[in-house]
Amino acid sequence: MTDRFSPSAGEQALANVRVVLVRTTHPGNIGAAARAMATMGLRELVLVAPRRFPDPEAVARAANAAPLLDRARVVGSLGDALNGCTEVVGLSARPRVFAGRVSAIRDAARSAAAQALHSPVALVFGTEMSGLSNEELARCGVVATIPTDASHGSLNVAAAVQVACYEMRMASIGGEVWHAPRFPAASHDEIERLYAHAEQTLAAMHFLDPRMPRRLLPRLRRLFARAGLEKEEVNILRGILARIDQVLARRKGR
Amino acid sequence: MTDRFSPSAGEQALANVRVVLVRTTHPGNIGAAARAMATMGLRELVLVAPRRFPDPEAVARAANAAPLLDRARVVGSLGDALNGCTEVVGLSARPRVFAGRVSAIRDAARSAAAQALHSPVALVFGTEMSGLSNEELARCGVVATIPTDASHGSLNVAAAVQVACYEMRMASIGGEVWHAPRFPAASHDEIERLYAHAEQTLAAMHFLDPRMPRRLLPRLRRLFARAGLEKEEVNILRGILARIDQVLARRKGR
Repeated sequence: MTDRFSPSAGEQALANVRVVLVRTTHPGNIGAAARAMATMGLRELVLVAPRRFPDPEAVARAANAAPLLDRARVVGSLGDALNGCTEVVGLSARPRVFAGRVSAIRDAARSAAAQALHSPVALVFGTEMSGLSNEELARCGVVATIPTDASHGSLNVAAAVQVACYEMRMASIGGEVWHAPRFPAASHDEIERLYAHAEQTLAAMHFLDPRMPRRLLPRLRRLFARAGLEKEEVNILRGILARIDQVLARRKGR
Repeated sequence: MTDRFSPSAGEQALANVRVVLVRTTHPGNIGAAARAMATMGLRELVLVAPRRFPDPEAVARAANAAPLLDRARVVGSLGDALNGCTEVVGLSARPRVFAGRVSAIRDAARSAAAQALHSPVALVFGTEMSGLSNEELARCGVVATIPTDASHGSLNVAAAVQVACYEMRMASIGGEVWHAPRFPAASHDEIERLYAHAEQTLAAMHFLDPRMPRRLLPRLRRLFARAGLEKEEVNILRGILARIDQVLARRKGR
């Protein structure tokens, strides 16, 4: 639907979203995070004091998103990473005593997406072992958390980036997805002729008592109404009925 | 909130959700998928003809979810994996000509979560390179797709498992998350005394013209109303004002 030469407002908002990874330990996670961002239409990655970067493992896990990794900015402090951002969302799995606004990521993404229509926003993710420090989190106006089964550990950092970027996309652009191709629908009268044919054939097979058709035909109508019949499907079903008619006629003829 | 000894209906529904990975190539992805499931409260993993399993790389990436990996069932065919399931959701990034019901994962998860209250359901994920085959997808009553920026590749399989399990949890249990602890709120009269004090001190500092207070005080009221003041914060602010009062008095005294 989207014209590639004029990005929608939602796409422009996603281009305003910066993903900031703080002191990431494993380069594989940086690569996987880049891939997660790219699949959701995010482009801007900032790395605060990564332990190993650049690194071939990051490139391998980034797959198609290697260009995003090439453009990633490496900075020394979280403050440098956040320059210019008007909304900063820090992800945290653990409860923190001094957190201000805390929301589930779905709500935080809605607010950040609205802000990103006008100015840069950041999603900030901490280190693998312990997340963001309290000092880092204090720089985040909003603390967002991904609902989890707390008894079973926390998400891998790239998995958290995937969920957060997915929610940013859902909030900015919505859940438009591909549709299965539609084939021409059968018309009302084509469908009624199918039912008439079916009734006749089922009676000829003695599967249907024409004086007591109560349950069978309404059930068949319900089933096919739910499915929404196409022209070609009506033709297939009538072909099957016609073949049964032939078999019955031959047997009768014997 | 939840009593661990009596799981909620939503938790029981999640226990009814089977994740099926078909012909997974990299054992690291199996481990990461297990971790993704565990964080969202899913327990049952079935592997159809995995290339390498068990494998130490799977255990490493599973982190805390290694027990879930130990319990994983390995089967030879997708049919075996789906026995007993009343709703089968196949994940597909690519459009398919013969797909029946196609939905975004959020809608598919709502429907599957409702079904899982009563009977087993499956989420089915294909191989890394090409996803589910058309024959495999034909066994899935629902095709679900994760909205993506199609020009930037598809999600890693474990990342797709993470998003799908997250949506299953949101649909079953909702987005309940930890809250920052609340400290005792300031009362209306405490806050009004703060504003009275502030007005007095700001006037004494000649920052506020008491005959023209129009913009400043309403702005301050608006700011603090948005924040929702706590008792201790009122005390801190009044302490600052009192300190300013002292400084002013001393200067005047000189």
